[in-house]
Amino acid sequence: MGRASKGRPTDRPAPLIVMVRPQLGENIGMAARAMLNCGLSALRLVGPRDGWPNERAWRAASGADVVLDEARVFETVGEAVADLEHVVATTARNRELVQRIVTARQAALDMRGWIARGRKVGILFGPERTGLSNDDMVHADTALTIPLNPQFSSLNVAQAVLIVAYEWAAANDATLAERLADHATRPASKEELQNLFDHLERALDQSGFLRHEAMRPSMVLNLRALLQRAAMTEQEARTFHGVIKFLSKHKHEE
Amino acid sequence: MGRASKGRPTDRPAPLIVMVRPQLGENIGMAARAMLNCGLSALRLVGPRDGWPNERAWRAASGADVVLDEARVFETVGEAVADLEHVVATTARNRELVQRIVTARQAALDMRGWIARGRKVGILFGPERTGLSNDDMVHADTALTIPLNPQFSSLNVAQAVLIVAYEWAAANDATLAERLADHATRPASKEELQNLFDHLERALDQSGFLRHEAMRPSMVLNLRALLQRAAMTEQEARTFHGVIKFLSKHKHEE
Repeated sequence: MGRASKGRPTDRPAPLIVMVRPQLGENIGMAARAMLNCGLSALRLVGPRDGWPNERAWRAASGADVVLDEARVFETVGEAVADLEHVVATTARNRELVQRIVTARQAALDMRGWIARGRKVGILFGPERTGLSNDDMVHADTALTIPLNPQFSSLNVAQAVLIVAYEWAAANDATLAERLADHATRPASKEELQNLFDHLERALDQSGFLRHEAMRPSMVLNLRALLQRAAMTEQEARTFHGVIKFLSKHKHEE
Repeated sequence: MGRASKGRPTDRPAPLIVMVRPQLGENIGMAARAMLNCGLSALRLVGPRDGWPNERAWRAASGADVVLDEARVFETVGEAVADLEHVVATTARNRELVQRIVTARQAALDMRGWIARGRKVGILFGPERTGLSNDDMVHADTALTIPLNPQFSSLNVAQAVLIVAYEWAAANDATLAERLADHATRPASKEELQNLFDHLERALDQSGFLRHEAMRPSMVLNLRALLQRAAMTEQEARTFHGVIKFLSKHKHEE
């Protein structure tokens, strides 16, 4: 608790995480780390078994101290959610309660909508061994279940926090699903590629590789398609000019 | 290693997980647990620092022994991916390599497509401290980065395995994003609701609650809208009939 936190929370409004009767300090710490990884920083603890503060939590947080330093402790779930307007409860099992059940992904979309309208939102996570009780669940507007391998669905509480927090981050993330890391350089222009194809074609003609007139057209087209597919940068196109030049210049005997 | 595994893998074809030069047995075990949670079971290890088998891995796997029991060990990344047709490499940093970079979600969609076409797919995860080197990355068709809090993005390797495996599971999951847990009972029919509204209206008339003719119509409509919103089950509708009956019968003095 002494050392400064490595992590900084993002200042965008986000859901609170409420850990109900957590047992192991390590799990509280790992949950704090997972929260901060995903831009969440407000943590509430209801009756932590080993008391609070708990050194083991800080040791397991890998620098997410800001989350633990500012965690608030409550005696009951009711007190912990009193100031919230929407509550989501994570549960592995299906309960007797008649409740709206959503996937972690749908919950993230719900929460994004609520928070965009300025609502205060919290997510409940139950104790390691038993999960949330019906008395806990009834505080929630929505039950959240993470679809997993039915043969092996037992998830550590910190892992559950990670997945739910990750879905929140993903629902609010603007990262392109797909991009090309082209760093200093830029994609080759079609003209640059055209010049490269022409260079290759000339070299292959001189080498005799295209000597069979009948096969020549499809051969040329297929080689072009292959090089198109590589989506070269202009730098790589220049490199490839050199490759052709040197291969055709320095013939080695066979 | 002696005890039988609690978990069973699903038999649907899925990507292999390749952990490159992992340092801590605990992380290998937690990764195995995360894999099995998400229906993955094929694990390959490249040069695990503390040798293999490693008791610490089995202790951390919480029953996902089947993954560890069947894990294969290789000396180099090249050997570990030799029989694969598509390789995805997870990386936090942006490399010098010009490579296609996708989010974890996009990678899951890519892999679903490849595997649907019968391709053998593997996902590389790097060592705890350093991550994958460029020499490792160059084996991959695609680089995968998980968008996280830029202020605090360092993710434990087992957590990274969990998120990537979770996205795989989510991309192949048929769970309804949203449903109502209505267990034994069924939603109330509109006729049952109509009867309930009529019952309530009569009771409120008798009680004098609706005595102001001008306000009556909007009052009745708003109460109906409220009860509609609750999306009652037929069981709850019957319960509510009782509530109205008893409230209006047993008047308490004020």
